[in-house]
Amino acid sequence: MTNAENSELSDLGVAHLLADAARAVILPHFRQPGLMAQNKCAGGFDPVTIADRAAEQAMRDLLTEHRPGDGILGEEFGSMPGDSGRQWVLDPIDGTRGFISGTPTWGVLIALADQNGPILGLIDQPYTQERFIGGLGHAEMTGPHGSMALSTRDGVALDRAILFSTFPEVGSAVERAGFQAVSRQVKLTRYGMDCYAYALLAAGQIDLVIEAGLNAYDIQAPIAVIQAAGGVVTDWQGGPAHDGGRVLAAANAELHAAALRTLSQTPEG
Amino acid sequence: MTNAENSELSDLGVAHLLADAARAVILPHFRQPGLMAQNKCAGGFDPVTIADRAAEQAMRDLLTEHRPGDGILGEEFGSMPGDSGRQWVLDPIDGTRGFISGTPTWGVLIALADQNGPILGLIDQPYTQERFIGGLGHAEMTGPHGSMALSTRDGVALDRAILFSTFPEVGSAVERAGFQAVSRQVKLTRYGMDCYAYALLAAGQIDLVIEAGLNAYDIQAPIAVIQAAGGVVTDWQGGPAHDGGRVLAAANAELHAAALRTLSQTPEG
Repeated sequence: MTNAENSELSDLGVAHLLADAARAVILPHFRQPGLMAQNKCAGGFDPVTIADRAAEQAMRDLLTEHRPGDGILGEEFGSMPGDSGRQWVLDPIDGTRGFISGTPTWGVLIALADQNGPILGLIDQPYTQERFIGGLGHAEMTGPHGSMALSTRDGVALDRAILFSTFPEVGSAVERAGFQAVSRQVKLTRYGMDCYAYALLAAGQIDLVIEAGLNAYDIQAPIAVIQAAGGVVTDWQGGPAHDGGRVLAAANAELHAAALRTLSQTPEG
Repeated sequence: MTNAENSELSDLGVAHLLADAARAVILPHFRQPGLMAQNKCAGGFDPVTIADRAAEQAMRDLLTEHRPGDGILGEEFGSMPGDSGRQWVLDPIDGTRGFISGTPTWGVLIALADQNGPILGLIDQPYTQERFIGGLGHAEMTGPHGSMALSTRDGVALDRAILFSTFPEVGSAVERAGFQAVSRQVKLTRYGMDCYAYALLAAGQIDLVIEAGLNAYDIQAPIAVIQAAGGVVTDWQGGPAHDGGRVLAAANAELHAAALRTLSQTPEG
């Protein structure tokens, strides 16, 4: 294939290609007996599977072929600079704890960012075969039950809202306190959905996701998908969230403002 | 169809028929905008959807046709006595909070019990199209990725175990303390899976599920599925759990004994 042919593939086409490749690499490892999880951090729990690394390598190989000028940031193999001013941001298995527990809540996260942040995002769940796409004029999900437009919901006040976070611990003690202050104001708080919670927000099923301690590759794809579906994603001060850290994702501007009033009082550190 | 023809359908065949009917009734309501949730309890949060009631009615109609002598206990429409000494135990949507949040963690629970407790159970997840079956010589799951035998895992010590519960609150304050005492001894604790956690235990993916405040219809199907897959389910004193209340489900007898040592110290009330 020549470079000219390569360049005819749209950015969305490339993103689908990466997601397809990651699915094919990861799925045979999901729910297999004896799945090995290495412990990457000395203090914490951050299992990395063979599938995680193989999937990122497969995606990097495709980017080298189809977008040689773009930079890459990936969870497993770090940063590779490009010369286009654009960067692909990859998390091959976001939610490794969910993955090793067999829950279909982890996902492949793929984002394309320019200088201002993510412009395209995919959240792919290989086991349920659902793919949530947002950016560059797209906002849709595809899956075994068909396709549907992604659109966040309106008209749900904070005291009727459904809030998600991955763990009840959320982050540091002050971050946990900030989260709990919002949690006390909503109708229902649930845990354990990993990146799938962001997809549910984009699909109009839930209203808020609040997390802390995220990395750029955890949140860039969700940002693009949620923004394309009509939602708002910022840090806990209302600034950009695409470098990670503390994240507030809301179905609409009103709900975002209501949750931000509480979260913005959280001290630093 | 005559009674003679009806009686040729096996108990497992009847259970599949009920699960198929529930799927067909419930799925069109899942993830629909504007899903109405009534509040059944004055104090608590227990949404009941149209889908919930319609699915139980559909299953009851099938039982009236195919097993007229058996009793029925269902979440929505209560108890109907039979004269066979057997009872079908139905929870059309176990995990209504998950259902209204769009998570594929709720399930249709169908059990057949005799005087000693459940002898057959089905956990069905209509959206992912997974069905977990246990009892009467069966222990298998079926789904879009094929069929597989259900078998709980062995050889995972308590300090390497993965524990699930639906909510971090678990139950009363003393129940929460008992749960947390076990949680501190395991490798990983996760939340938010509703009845799907029991299915993951039967499928050899996780090691423990601990809950409290359950009803008979919440736990009879999981008991049959997990026992058929090699696991152990009791209350927190090691007695039968099929009437609900405090439940400990473990992948094997060793892990069950290890968790029970802690849980059995939980005071009553």
